[in-house]
Amino acid sequence: MTTLIFCAFSNRRDAVELAHEVLRDLAQRGREGKICLLDDAEEPSFGADTLVVSLGGDGTFLKAARLAHAAGARILAVNLGRLGFLLNVPSTQIVTSIEDALTSTHVSDRLALAVTVKGVEHEVFALNEVVVERAQAGHIVRVKTFVNDEEYLSYAADGVMVATPTGSTGYNFSAGGPVVEPALHVMVLTPIAPHFTIDRSIVVDHSATIQLIVVDKPALLVADGHTIAALNAGDGVTVRKSAAPVRVVATQSFDVASRLRQSLREGHA
Amino acid sequence: MTTLIFCAFSNRRDAVELAHEVLRDLAQRGREGKICLLDDAEEPSFGADTLVVSLGGDGTFLKAARLAHAAGARILAVNLGRLGFLLNVPSTQIVTSIEDALTSTHVSDRLALAVTVKGVEHEVFALNEVVVERAQAGHIVRVKTFVNDEEYLSYAADGVMVATPTGSTGYNFSAGGPVVEPALHVMVLTPIAPHFTIDRSIVVDHSATIQLIVVDKPALLVADGHTIAALNAGDGVTVRKSAAPVRVVATQSFDVASRLRQSLREGHA
Amino acid sequence: MTTLIFCAFSNRRDAVELAHEVLRDLAQRGREGKICLLDDAEEPSFGADTLVVSLGGDGTFLKAARLAHAAGARILAVNLGRLGFLLNVPSTQIVTSIEDALTSTHVSDRLALAVTVKGVEHEVFALNEVVVERAQAGHIVRVKTFVNDEEYLSYAADGVMVATPTGSTGYNFSAGGPVVEPALHVMVLTPIAPHFTIDRSIVVDHSATIQLIVVDKPALLVADGHTIAALNAGDGVTVRKSAAPVRVVATQSFDVASRLRQSLREGHA
Amino acid sequence: MTTLIFCAFSNRRDAVELAHEVLRDLAQRGREGKICLLDDAEEPSFGADTLVVSLGGDGTFLKAARLAHAAGARILAVNLGRLGFLLNVPSTQIVTSIEDALTSTHVSDRLALAVTVKGVEHEVFALNEVVVERAQAGHIVRVKTFVNDEEYLSYAADGVMVATPTGSTGYNFSAGGPVVEPALHVMVLTPIAPHFTIDRSIVVDHSATIQLIVVDKPALLVADGHTIAALNAGDGVTVRKSAAPVRVVATQSFDVASRLRQSLREGHA
Repeated sequence: MTTLIFCAFSNRRDAVELAHEVLRDLAQRGREGKICLLDDAEEPSFGADTLVVSLGGDGTFLKAARLAHAAGARILAVNLGRLGFLLNVPSTQIVTSIEDALTSTHVSDRLALAVTVKGVEHEVFALNEVVVERAQAGHIVRVKTFVNDEEYLSYAADGVMVATPTGSTGYNFSAGGPVVEPALHVMVLTPIAPHFTIDRSIVVDHSATIQLIVVDKPALLVADGHTIAALNAGDGVTVRKSAAPVRVVATQSFDVASRLRQSLREGHA
Repeated sequence: MTTLIFCAFSNRRDAVELAHEVLRDLAQRGREGKICLLDDAEEPSFGADTLVVSLGGDGTFLKAARLAHAAGARILAVNLGRLGFLLNVPSTQIVTSIEDALTSTHVSDRLALAVTVKGVEHEVFALNEVVVERAQAGHIVRVKTFVNDEEYLSYAADGVMVATPTGSTGYNFSAGGPVVEPALHVMVLTPIAPHFTIDRSIVVDHSATIQLIVVDKPALLVADGHTIAALNAGDGVTVRKSAAPVRVVATQSFDVASRLRQSLREGHA
Repeated sequence: MTTLIFCAFSNRRDAVELAHEVLRDLAQRGREGKICLLDDAEEPSFGADTLVVSLGGDGTFLKAARLAHAAGARILAVNLGRLGFLLNVPSTQIVTSIEDALTSTHVSDRLALAVTVKGVEHEVFALNEVVVERAQAGHIVRVKTFVNDEEYLSYAADGVMVATPTGSTGYNFSAGGPVVEPALHVMVLTPIAPHFTIDRSIVVDHSATIQLIVVDKPALLVADGHTIAALNAGDGVTVRKSAAPVRVVATQSFDVASRLRQSLREGHA
Repeated sequence: MTTLIFCAFSNRRDAVELAHEVLRDLAQRGREGKICLLDDAEEPSFGADTLVVSLGGDGTFLKAARLAHAAGARILAVNLGRLGFLLNVPSTQIVTSIEDALTSTHVSDRLALAVTVKGVEHEVFALNEVVVERAQAGHIVRVKTFVNDEEYLSYAADGVMVATPTGSTGYNFSAGGPVVEPALHVMVLTPIAPHFTIDRSIVVDHSATIQLIVVDKPALLVADGHTIAALNAGDGVTVRKSAAPVRVVATQSFDVASRLRQSLREGHA
């Protein structure tokens, strides 16, 4: 039977209160669930039959999605904040969406990235993007790129990223990259402020192995906005599609086009 | 048995002479073939078992590919000119490439576009891109875009294009669009010099139906660089993947990355 | 004494009616004026002491500004339409603005371009931009650029423009060029969809002589949205600052920043 | 009488040796000079009559230019490395260039920036650009911009910079900004990877006061590649033209156009 777990950051009071409220509501319908605080020391244990309910903004969703992904669990993306490209459930529709999710198996599979650093054991997960960027303000980093062992362009830049379709409207968009439909099986290679080099993105198949090699200067490996590792000249980062996708509950539409229009209008406050 | 047809424009003397030379060479090996001048009034008749050999530059290839596509024939892309992204066979390797093509069936399927204009019977073919653009110098055209009947962005621009992966390094690249690996099953929607609108491309699945609706001002429909139709306010253009791909002989590599590097270096003469 | 002339296109009924209304209003205050229909066969005769009142949108203003410039007259830019970057007088404030303009001499001098084509006698005027662009849909044009006889970049592009600060928020902006404060003494060289070349604009001093040489293919010379001349391979266009500026009445602010924000929000309908 | 001081970083052996060599050469001609190691603890003392000779790459020049600027001294920009946009004297022409500089007063005045941070006493100098950027990898910073107290655009971005014409081919170029002729009296406001906002640069007069206000998140103030200060939400940075320009010896041409072409070709290694 499906276990219901609400994920929120403890400093988002509104999210935590909403979780309690929804739990009471569900209790009256004979359903149980738990709350998982994402900043808790203790790692929660999810199973493949867990329905993870993310309560917050994009940051909450990205963290909850990482946990859900590790367990093979589905995730319901509730939007408690400003417009989020990743979040398709308005807070007013949590309960019905949960009911729908418990009876339906309609998910939108999102490509995630599995990143390995030469010499480092564990694999890094990213749902939006992985960036190799300069470690020091005011400097640039030189990065060579390879797709399936074929050398592509070299960049002297603030950084170079590999973005997923999900992440295409995020940092990739800021850096000039294309919007990619969430369901497409592709990855996008996008440089950030490259010097004297063409700044176009390169769209490759999800089966590709992309390598980013740091040529000089210390660099950082950043995944979904979190710094994962320090890199030195010569270090290489390998980016592949994660074996399993992130399984986002899709009983509601994602409305990419209307979100895009709204974001563009609101971008110029 | 495979029929061999060499395609060239009659004003490319070098191409026509080369065709004759190769034909003589092949005759000694017991193979026959014909020459088809692409600017001839008479339409050539190809069959699915024809091997079309395009002799010239990108323009020759695009025209020959249209004919090959209509017949389901394979096409061998010989490069007789400057660096062409579409052309993988150097002129020095024509004969061996033909021999290889006759014994191998290794083709690279290239997504082509099937374009229909409201009220016009026949379908337009495009291998690189389809553009709805302003009919008059100095003016702009307003175009609404739809993907699978969902409204996307509206543009006041010089034009709006749908490009294939094959065309991604052409006009799409000039307009700021991403480079897309030739084999990917996607289409790219890219505005050309849009006014006060974000200029990012949108990458959609090859199964999508894209509509470009002219909101005001006369416009032109241009496919692979040829003006196909005049459009008026209210006219709609529907772009879909063509049912069949263009079948390019792939016994040689296309080297997208090295062509890209070379083109970028040579772009700044 | 200052002569008052209202300029409008005859198909803008609202503008023509407004002109009559304002004339009646002014008559009661003992002031006289005339109406000039910009699409009349007869060229109006303005003097340096004329106050030209442009009634319409950007197109009306550009045409009226050309006439005012030729005569050294001042121009009052009334906005009868959608947001226009060039138009600083709301229609509700015409009469007071005219009164202010008659007693004040506060003008904002706008750099205009004087364009000559090799072999053509007369000089072309442009307040927004001059473009050398491809004559044929689906083709590109190769253009070499020179600044003060020093060779700059060569472009294979849809076109290459020289924009004024006034025109910087127009076509130049669409093509990726920078916004330039209206009063600056600079010109901006901006390529339109250049292929495999960097697409940055180049900002040069107003004293510079810019040459655009057509390398191949027929091209068009377009000034402020009007096609002025057909160009052939080898033809050169010389762009300089016009000896006299356009003298726009500046009793009201131009609010570049707020217009920019508004345009950006409204650009994504 | 003009004092001659050679500036180099001590770890650039070639530069230090060259300085000694040139000094011996000059000694035979009866001229004296000194060597100043830029990484020495002791600050050198220059006067307005010093001729500073920068021996190294762009980094050496930027540091030496700051010292020369503080003293009102002229600077000779010798290029000991890869192509530098700022460096107009090839190493083979040092001695003749010094002789020319001692007898000529032909300088190219370069606009420099004077930057003040609210609450911080001393003024920061920048010859290339000043950047307000995110303090933390993976985050963005929100920055409001003002020109002469008029609110301009707000950005959610990696950073926002104000660049000089000298710096326009540096970080400004990478971020998409225009190339500006070195002698122009303008400053360029350029956002770095702004999210859902137009990314065009804004070119303003050298007399303008530009303010960059940090709206949220910790940020850094970076001048010419060096981190100068940590900024917090609410902190404001004021950027103005420095009262005095940097006085670069201009007995040789700067060849902006040919350097641009060369850099573009070499950018795609």
